[in-house]
Amino acid sequence: RRYEYETDGAAIYRASFATIRSETDLSAVPEDARVIAVRMVHACGQTDLVRDLVVHPQLVSAARTALRAGAPIFTDAHMVASGVTRARLPADNPVHCLLRDERVPALAHRWGTTRSAAAVSLWGAELEDAVVAIGNAPTALFHLLELIADGGPRPAAIVGVPVGFIGAAESKAALAEFPGDVPFLTVRGRRGGSAMAASAINALAREQE
Amino acid sequence: RRYEYETDGAAIYRASFATIRSETDLSAVPEDARVIAVRMVHACGQTDLVRDLVVHPQLVSAARTALRAGAPIFTDAHMVASGVTRARLPADNPVHCLLRDERVPALAHRWGTTRSAAAVSLWGAELEDAVVAIGNAPTALFHLLELIADGGPRPAAIVGVPVGFIGAAESKAALAEFPGDVPFLTVRGRRGGSAMAASAINALAREQE
Repeated sequence: RRYEYETDGAAIYRASFATIRSETDLSAVPEDARVIAVRMVHACGQTDLVRDLVVHPQLVSAARTALRAGAPIFTDAHMVASGVTRARLPADNPVHCLLRDERVPALAHRWGTTRSAAAVSLWGAELEDAVVAIGNAPTALFHLLELIADGGPRPAAIVGVPVGFIGAAESKAALAEFPGDVPFLTVRGRRGGSAMAASAINALAREQE
Repeated sequence: RRYEYETDGAAIYRASFATIRSETDLSAVPEDARVIAVRMVHACGQTDLVRDLVVHPQLVSAARTALRAGAPIFTDAHMVASGVTRARLPADNPVHCLLRDERVPALAHRWGTTRSAAAVSLWGAELEDAVVAIGNAPTALFHLLELIADGGPRPAAIVGVPVGFIGAAESKAALAEFPGDVPFLTVRGRRGGSAMAASAINALAREQE
């Protein structure tokens, strides 16, 4: 070995989480959501992420109850689905991304919206009591909120952390202020992304860090 | 529509890249790498990423030449592979992640290393002149550098941006100082990740932004 580095995967996780806990002020995060915050910091390498984190008081209990009951997980991007560690899921929960569904391009064209938003409308009745993880497209998050506000299926919990410069911050502000009172987790501003969305789901999926 | 937001996917991309260019100081980035920097900023939502970006002067030309010639892309994580937009690849290039190869657990155990590092050793002779994208595991990047230093196959270019608190910054410093002179791109410090690795590959894959 030419370099000195830790080679035990479990030890790397333990040391990572310990470093994050020692450097991060988690006092503003609901107590049961601190493990979620730690894993999201781990996913982006930035302890100051916590200052932008907004967690609904029922987010953790609602998402965990739903996942234990077998709720499916709906994602806006294949990267998010790919980042969900299947072995952590409590009930072999299905993980769906419908972005490549063959109906999506025609729907997006007809409605004059993005493919990401069109794909959300295909989640259908299964969205009721499901867990949603949006890490990429602000339009998917906006479309989801519109769908719920219009009387569509209500998910049990929404992890809404699209990243970027156009609409991302606005869509996350809309989630935080959504009058429908669906438990949510979001990150104010431009930060977010697939890895962050998947890390939140992975932390919610199993209580053990 | 209950919210006001841009719904034209192409317009969102254009506006995003324009915002990034207007807010980001790209003067320290090699001219041919500025499109790469813009896409990486897009992936993380942070214009100050550029101050940590290190790009070898031959990175862009070496990676593009290799990709046009059909080079495979090797990734350390399925999320990275999932984030590579296949339609942008110039030669229908194969994208490999061997983390779930059945030989990996036994190799990792025998060598006393992580599964991510063990998977790198399975890249084999195809690694010669390939393009590498590491977005997750510092141990994979360390192992790759050791393998090259020991006379193993030399990739055409390395995008090495593992994220995190244990070994990530050190592995990226090792890449930046690697005496083997393989063209590379990295981000100093803790930031990085699968989305950033994939975004760099997507920018390298096609000249058109």
